[in-house]
Amino acid sequence: MSKAMELARHLETLHINNMYKNDFYWTWDKTDEELDAIFTVADALRDLRERNKSTRVFDSGLGISIFRDNSTRTRFSFASACNLLGLEEQVLDEKVSQIAHGETVRETANMVSFMAEVIGIRDDMFIGEGHKYQKTFIDALEEGYRDGILEQRPTLVNLQCDVDHPTQCMADMLHIIHYFGGVENLKGKKVAMTWAYSPSYGKPLSVPQGVVGLFTRFGMDVVLAHPEGYEIMPEIEEIAKKNAEQSGGSFSKCNSMAEAFKDADIVYPKSWAPFAAMEKRTKLYQQGDKAGIDALEKELLQQNAEHKDWACTEEMMSLTKDGKALYLHCLPADITGLSCKEGEVDNSVFDRYIVPLYKQASYKPYIIAAMIFLAKVKDPVKALMAMDASDELRKKF
Amino acid sequence: MSKAMELARHLETLHINNMYKNDFYWTWDKTDEELDAIFTVADALRDLRERNKSTRVFDSGLGISIFRDNSTRTRFSFASACNLLGLEEQVLDEKVSQIAHGETVRETANMVSFMAEVIGIRDDMFIGEGHKYQKTFIDALEEGYRDGILEQRPTLVNLQCDVDHPTQCMADMLHIIHYFGGVENLKGKKVAMTWAYSPSYGKPLSVPQGVVGLFTRFGMDVVLAHPEGYEIMPEIEEIAKKNAEQSGGSFSKCNSMAEAFKDADIVYPKSWAPFAAMEKRTKLYQQGDKAGIDALEKELLQQNAEHKDWACTEEMMSLTKDGKALYLHCLPADITGLSCKEGEVDNSVFDRYIVPLYKQASYKPYIIAAMIFLAKVKDPVKALMAMDASDELRKKF
Amino acid sequence: MSKAMELARHLETLHINNMYKNDFYWTWDKTDEELDAIFTVADALRDLRERNKSTRVFDSGLGISIFRDNSTRTRFSFASACNLLGLEEQVLDEKVSQIAHGETVRETANMVSFMAEVIGIRDDMFIGEGHKYQKTFIDALEEGYRDGILEQRPTLVNLQCDVDHPTQCMADMLHIIHYFGGVENLKGKKVAMTWAYSPSYGKPLSVPQGVVGLFTRFGMDVVLAHPEGYEIMPEIEEIAKKNAEQSGGSFSKCNSMAEAFKDADIVYPKSWAPFAAMEKRTKLYQQGDKAGIDALEKELLQQNAEHKDWACTEEMMSLTKDGKALYLHCLPADITGLSCKEGEVDNSVFDRYIVPLYKQASYKPYIIAAMIFLAKVKDPVKALMAMDASDELRKKF
Repeated sequence: MSKAMELARHLETLHINNMYKNDFYWTWDKTDEELDAIFTVADALRDLRERNKSTRVFDSGLGISIFRDNSTRTRFSFASACNLLGLEEQVLDEKVSQIAHGETVRETANMVSFMAEVIGIRDDMFIGEGHKYQKTFIDALEEGYRDGILEQRPTLVNLQCDVDHPTQCMADMLHIIHYFGGVENLKGKKVAMTWAYSPSYGKPLSVPQGVVGLFTRFGMDVVLAHPEGYEIMPEIEEIAKKNAEQSGGSFSKCNSMAEAFKDADIVYPKSWAPFAAMEKRTKLYQQGDKAGIDALEKELLQQNAEHKDWACTEEMMSLTKDGKALYLHCLPADITGLSCKEGEVDNSVFDRYIVPLYKQASYKPYIIAAMIFLAKVKDPVKALMAMDASDELRKKF
Repeated sequence: MSKAMELARHLETLHINNMYKNDFYWTWDKTDEELDAIFTVADALRDLRERNKSTRVFDSGLGISIFRDNSTRTRFSFASACNLLGLEEQVLDEKVSQIAHGETVRETANMVSFMAEVIGIRDDMFIGEGHKYQKTFIDALEEGYRDGILEQRPTLVNLQCDVDHPTQCMADMLHIIHYFGGVENLKGKKVAMTWAYSPSYGKPLSVPQGVVGLFTRFGMDVVLAHPEGYEIMPEIEEIAKKNAEQSGGSFSKCNSMAEAFKDADIVYPKSWAPFAAMEKRTKLYQQGDKAGIDALEKELLQQNAEHKDWACTEEMMSLTKDGKALYLHCLPADITGLSCKEGEVDNSVFDRYIVPLYKQASYKPYIIAAMIFLAKVKDPVKALMAMDASDELRKKF
Repeated sequence: MSKAMELARHLETLHINNMYKNDFYWTWDKTDEELDAIFTVADALRDLRERNKSTRVFDSGLGISIFRDNSTRTRFSFASACNLLGLEEQVLDEKVSQIAHGETVRETANMVSFMAEVIGIRDDMFIGEGHKYQKTFIDALEEGYRDGILEQRPTLVNLQCDVDHPTQCMADMLHIIHYFGGVENLKGKKVAMTWAYSPSYGKPLSVPQGVVGLFTRFGMDVVLAHPEGYEIMPEIEEIAKKNAEQSGGSFSKCNSMAEAFKDADIVYPKSWAPFAAMEKRTKLYQQGDKAGIDALEKELLQQNAEHKDWACTEEMMSLTKDGKALYLHCLPADITGLSCKEGEVDNSVFDRYIVPLYKQASYKPYIIAAMIFLAKVKDPVKALMAMDASDELRKKF
């Protein structure tokens, strides 16, 4: 029996009725079985592709992407996922559209969606804004569908908001699952999700939040470490705590990178912005207070520079389990001596982990494809089995 | 019998031999039966899509879009139409190409068209220029095809020029036809195509011109209303008059919004630029007279601001037939108190008509697809029937 | 027997095992039989397309393009070639990606390639840089493929580097082959690859280098003519000499356009930058010496302006074989009195050759498609025969 077939059989055992015609905002909205289904379908689609089986679900249809922040990895992952399923990506570029002059999100959402099957949105710039935008967009589509304006209801894939970065963290997790030889081997593993210094101080909180919100569900001991002032959103810490209780793992916090790295099986050192300051910045932007923003940025750069010792050095790595913890990063990393003078990680450490790091990234297109697949395909088990049995090839010759 | 099948049978009764390998510039170039064919094919493609039938005509081939002005709706409509038929959209972005330095339109046209099936062009900025550009482009392709440079002759779909906006007005019309339960119910309906105030004074004339040039063909009483100085092109008024005579309707003009709205069944209040001033502006641009342009724009803004009472308010709407005329707009509208301080329409009016307005917009992808289909498919009746009978699905699972 | 079938039979006689899973940097890396294979497949794909046969190899997969310089012709040729084979083009736009801040080429290359089958790169701006970038990019993919990061190894198509412009020169050559009725008729034909004046002085050397590096392989007498100071890379001259010896043709140089044009069967007058100055410019750029660049550019413009007599005038054309040499250009040309005051070619000359010039350009999509095809299809003979025999149509109706 093929791997895809085995995975389809596993999928059959999961309760996932709620996924069809649904959206993907945050991992903590989803049940354990729903996340399992995404991992399962991602692996199945990968197996089918590797065995040169066609995985086209659609003969026509668009996948719309909206990137309100720069992107390479996620952009190409989304485009790849759409293409794999037979959808054509169309970018909604707010600069070359007519959207500027006061058009409502409701209108834009409907106008681009007449033939869209999926909307992928990255909006991670401002605390309290990114998720709201995605929600408003999808509410408008739900309404449009109910009112008979849209013939199909496009599904949302959150390509990073201010709260979570689910396609990233799910890809990270699938990488870990395979690295450790199965989800059953994760219990008791220690994960250090730590802040790290970077010359650019304003990175989104969605990765650390996504990681503690997701990794705590697998019975692991998740430690969140950062200098004072770099707290993440308290709601997410609450979620992490509850997850840990339910999964039999733990969630703890500390203000020392070394303590977090001590005996860790997995480390994820990464820069992010101070939450309270980000909230202040969002307000200053809303008020259009340019002087205030400049003053705040100066202050933040100073605060930031005080923590250059939060770096994933060789010394730091030697503290981990056998000195060989799995190093994770969502990429691109700020690499000391390569991409910047002082950054998140030593070049020698980064370089040693390049192959697993790139493999980590390779799961994202499949995670996204699985999210679309489960939201769009009524009987995903049957569909996988049909693809497995079909003699339609991805590459004919 | 399916709806698509019924529509195919109706298509069979129409004289449309001239549409194959032809272009779509203006609605008044087309016979009544040709327009009927477009509505019919648009409805048939929609029915096929709703019934999950594949409507792919092409296995490969490009649809080239050239937007010399901003666009969201039309851009996505064109991309959707191409995708629905199996073509991949490619945008010719004049900024990132080598076109700048004096390359002729003839050359560009041929260079991008070796594998193109359709060219969609929006060029609506300057009076006397937009249509000319489209014509030059297509003449070059015709020549290229005759000379054996091109293996196929791409068809033109006018995505808005300085004269007409046929994909918009055809979509508007198909909306009206369905709203009133059939084309036979339109006779004697009163349509008010009126100017309305907007803070941005320079919008193209192609929508009002397209509307009076098309709507007068259906036996309706079309009233064109605007303040003095906002005349449309006299040639188009002539066309509207002739159309009205032939169709048994009427075409009249007045300088009062209230008079136009009185007992109207349909209202289309929309800002446009003063024609004479636009002609002047085009000349100033050609002369590169920046000071002249600035002076003219100032003058126009002043003139414009004198007509803030031309707004589709609740009071104005109450004058219409039972106070319930169908409100149309090509979108985005300038909505008073929502997208601007004082605009084309009251927020409460706009909001009440959102569902029909968005439905109006939903016809555009199908209208464009129908235009391509009829220009490219030799036997459209047979093709629709084959699609209807086929078990190729749009969405396989 | 169809033309495609005949071509497939010819392909069967060629030794091309090395092409599968290989890349295309420069024509001089390839054997004569390999170049023959590309011409053969290009012609076969064209014949199949003209006969409305589907030439889809791929059911899904991306073609990534990276244009570090402007492009229209090559951009659309690449997009067309991808589309013809079933790949969706995705543009890697370095401006809207996260690449800016020090990300390595190795990382970017892997990140965009998880589902990519081909990478097309134009990087022709700086001597010594363009080829290096392509090589680094592909080495990273080779490594990624070996390390199991990538499931398939994308092939490179050089869309112009600082050294060669193989898709252009191969298209030029295929045009010549058809123009003269077969490759066997080229022996002894005289080709004048000459510099010509253009107001923009900094054009890449890749076209003249590509032409002398390729055309000398067909037994022709290739003359390279330019003013002093406009030498091409000496390595390429060496290649041209060796080619000429082997093919029984000749390669010579002179500093007179008239001498080169004398009795020529083919002329290719085109502006390019002085090589030594380009090297200097590259260094100044690397040093960030803006004043130095400005001074150099001024000097170059002066030097350039001394050679306005290097123009393809009617007088110059009258010197060629029967006054009727085949005029070639990669386009866009700088046309005297049309696109500039004084340029590379008289308007009357250019205009007389427009049809063959555009036909010359029409081969590029097929040349690119053939390069992809031969790198990706394991048994190209069988694939062409299957396509020829299949009843899958490119355009169904």
